[in-house]
Amino acid sequence: MSTVAPSTRTTVRRLPERGVYERAAIEAILDEGLFCHVGFVVEDQPYVIPCVYARIGERLYLHGSPASRMLRALATGAPACATVTLLDGLVLARSAFHHSVNYRSVVILGTASRVDDAEERLAALRATVEHVVPGRWNEARRPSAAELAQTLVVALPIDEASAKVRSGGPKDDAGDHALDVWAGVVPLTLVAGAPIADSDLREGIAIPAHALRYERPRRGEP
Amino acid sequence: MSTVAPSTRTTVRRLPERGVYERAAIEAILDEGLFCHVGFVVEDQPYVIPCVYARIGERLYLHGSPASRMLRALATGAPACATVTLLDGLVLARSAFHHSVNYRSVVILGTASRVDDAEERLAALRATVEHVVPGRWNEARRPSAAELAQTLVVALPIDEASAKVRSGGPKDDAGDHALDVWAGVVPLTLVAGAPIADSDLREGIAIPAHALRYERPRRGEP
Repeated sequence: MSTVAPSTRTTVRRLPERGVYERAAIEAILDEGLFCHVGFVVEDQPYVIPCVYARIGERLYLHGSPASRMLRALATGAPACATVTLLDGLVLARSAFHHSVNYRSVVILGTASRVDDAEERLAALRATVEHVVPGRWNEARRPSAAELAQTLVVALPIDEASAKVRSGGPKDDAGDHALDVWAGVVPLTLVAGAPIADSDLREGIAIPAHALRYERPRRGEP
Repeated sequence: MSTVAPSTRTTVRRLPERGVYERAAIEAILDEGLFCHVGFVVEDQPYVIPCVYARIGERLYLHGSPASRMLRALATGAPACATVTLLDGLVLARSAFHHSVNYRSVVILGTASRVDDAEERLAALRATVEHVVPGRWNEARRPSAAELAQTLVVALPIDEASAKVRSGGPKDDAGDHALDVWAGVVPLTLVAGAPIADSDLREGIAIPAHALRYERPRRGEP
């Protein structure tokens, strides 16, 4: 996992229109992930900030307070990077050297822009709620005009992007196979627990299915 | 979660020597996390790359191939950011606007340096294996001289750092409490599944406890 960086920017493949497999693999990872880590630069210092997101088509949407330095930097066209990482397992090899991690990640490079169109802004917020908790938007009270005015929405094109995947068992040296050391994979999964009702919840409101049976979509391994 | 960015660099508090609670809170998050997202800049473009790490005292260690662009950038003193995020739950409010995420994150800013001292390098690799799978180092074959020569180790001081935490239930507007909408938290936990033995594993090797009963340490909520 420590060496997933592309060796040069050019090895981060620009997605061709017909690269369906590639785009499908990238989109599956983006749709399964819950949050990304956004990188941006202020006065030569990179910052990496966790942020929920949503994908609509070929755009990644981020939102938050207009006071957020990250969002302000992105809204003004600062070069950005958004990375989504899904951790799938720990790879225990016979040698310390070959220990590794199974994961799927996507790195998106580019320049975001502020979204001003009212319809697109609302679609982005709806997609974000639905991305995190599918089925939730239709239950919750919609944003008011005042709330929308307090929300900055930016869009990052999913254009210059690449996925990286490690899966499977350890890759030990042949000479190590005789060692008396267990080797294999410990799978890891993000699991939802029993919902905890708000202490102020009105009586008689049932836990909705989207909370009671919450799970992330797994749209196939790329 | 979208607005965890410090509004200016100065609000990322430099850790005072006596800020025990602060350092303890930061260290607890770093010790529970498995991997970080490292930000660095090449030709004005920020990159964010997932990377396993280990903490020894007040230093965060990263390692990997000497060909890794990320490690080479860090080894030559490029400004860096390492962010660790633990996702604890989804906060379902009555209003779409107040939906949120419970999380604990640490952002470390600074400049890393290459580690050349043989003893410190080995200690960093040992700490990394033990950080990811406690108890594993003593089972696995130790790195050979050739393997060590293929490994670049860098250290980032945990000096200019801050933790951000959101916990608890939704913070709905008072006027929304009468709505007929369930509100609360869906807790999320990273859970280990049954270990999957390597297909080439010699017969008669039992699954060690560190794989069979794998779980992350939870050293108290900050």
